Amino acid sequence: MNPLSGIQHTEVLYGIHPVFEALKAGRRDFFEVYIAKDKASKRLEKVVGFAEIFKIPVKKVKPAQLKSIAGTDLHQGIGARVSRYPLAGISDIIDNLKPADANSFLLLLDSMLDPNNLGAIIRTALCVGIDGVIIPKDRSAPPSPAVSRASAGALEHIHLARGTNMVNMIRALKERGMWIVGMDKSASESIFSSDLSGSVAIVIGGEEKGIRPLVKKNCDYLVSIPQTGPLDSLNASVAGAVVMYEAFRQREFAQIVESVRKC
Amino acid sequence: MNPLSGIQHTEVLYGIHPVFEALKAGRRDFFEVYIAKDKASKRLEKVVGFAEIFKIPVKKVKPAQLKSIAGTDLHQGIGARVSRYPLAGISDIIDNLKPADANSFLLLLDSMLDPNNLGAIIRTALCVGIDGVIIPKDRSAPPSPAVSRASAGALEHIHLARGTNMVNMIRALKERGMWIVGMDKSASESIFSSDLSGSVAIVIGGEEKGIRPLVKKNCDYLVSIPQTGPLDSLNASVAGAVVMYEAFRQREFAQIVESVRKC
Repeated sequence: MNPLSGIQHTEVLYGIHPVFEALKAGRRDFFEVYIAKDKASKRLEKVVGFAEIFKIPVKKVKPAQLKSIAGTDLHQGIGARVSRYPLAGISDIIDNLKPADANSFLLLLDSMLDPNNLGAIIRTALCVGIDGVIIPKDRSAPPSPAVSRASAGALEHIHLARGTNMVNMIRALKERGMWIVGMDKSASESIFSSDLSGSVAIVIGGEEKGIRPLVKKNCDYLVSIPQTGPLDSLNASVAGAVVMYEAFRQREFAQIVESVRKC
Repeated sequence: MNPLSGIQHTEVLYGIHPVFEALKAGRRDFFEVYIAKDKASKRLEKVVGFAEIFKIPVKKVKPAQLKSIAGTDLHQGIGARVSRYPLAGISDIIDNLKPADANSFLLLLDSMLDPNNLGAIIRTALCVGIDGVIIPKDRSAPPSPAVSRASAGALEHIHLARGTNMVNMIRALKERGMWIVGMDKSASESIFSSDLSGSVAIVIGGEEKGIRPLVKKNCDYLVSIPQTGPLDSLNASVAGAVVMYEAFRQREFAQIVESVRKC
């Protein structure tokens, strides 16, 4: 095989968390791990030890060389040439849904163009046990090494699919019995008075414009995060975290609430 | 007055939100607003129009000059020389507390060294109506223009005080009838099963090490944010947002929950 054509199908992860979590997740092929010669820390040693267990070549390089390989100086002394991001298929995510009466929990991210916001939301999504994340092909930051870094490596574990048409995906999810809940700043219904338990897909838009109108129109209902004070806007990743955690709370505490209601 | 000595007591805000919110809040003196010559946008025009109403001199400068004045290129085409950050006194915050039976809501940030995390938490704090934020003098990022930018200008509205001794401040707050709730990853009590209504001060630590041991020891109780999956750590600003919003939810919905409990 021509090694150059091989490189076209690889990318370079950088940062301790992305490299370590990708090793732990075991979903990517590792070709080489790069360590900056001037860096030495227990955390780096741990990652290198892990790489050696899997018999991955570890190369010591100059910091400038690592910067050139990673394409950034945010590498924390470590990089790894790996196979491309292991995307899930839309059909995998939809077929893996639990029956409609269970608690499937999906996230649809529309127009999330900023890699830092996308990564931060994926980090939280993993912490609340989201079953899958779906992003559109044309209106989203791609699942790049920058997103993996912003997610503290959570991207390496999450099930992420890219679809061409968000509205069609929403329709397919509805057919599988899912409720589609869109985040909309101007919605009168609060997340705290909405039922976010059961099989739910939460749709979150980008910081600037939110969800696109046609996507919004296809949601079953729209909810907003209540706010007070002189500013009217939460950071996109914070807004995502607040709604995901409210859904998580309702799921975890559903039985308690239910038993109180029946008292 | 020696103009140089005057400049030592000023600082340069940069970015559209910090400058605009500082103008709206009216808590700082404005000496000059700087606009980059190559930038023109409706948002910038709006801020300039606002500055002109207050008869603040507006100076057009070259982008490189603005970068030099602001000390960063993250200025979005606008900067403003203003008086230093209007810190609240610890006694102001404590004296302004509502009676113990009401809903005073404070935030104590211990070891929050990263300006981006500090700014992000202050942004959310303003959105949930926090009455005051207290940071230690020695173990915190200071309320700098970088924090104002990271807070999208929320810093300009929030009541922020710096104290020398966090433990003494906690004791003073306890004497005023406040409950001190510390965030601690290893706490067995979840935020969702804890009472965060009433007069509460939430203590949040930095991303790396959390709250310092002596501060932790002085909290009335410790709570954690439940998490699932292979990663065990939320971003500090996300963790702050989740606990503040849970407290906000309990405050907003306390009556509803109460009426359910009494059914």
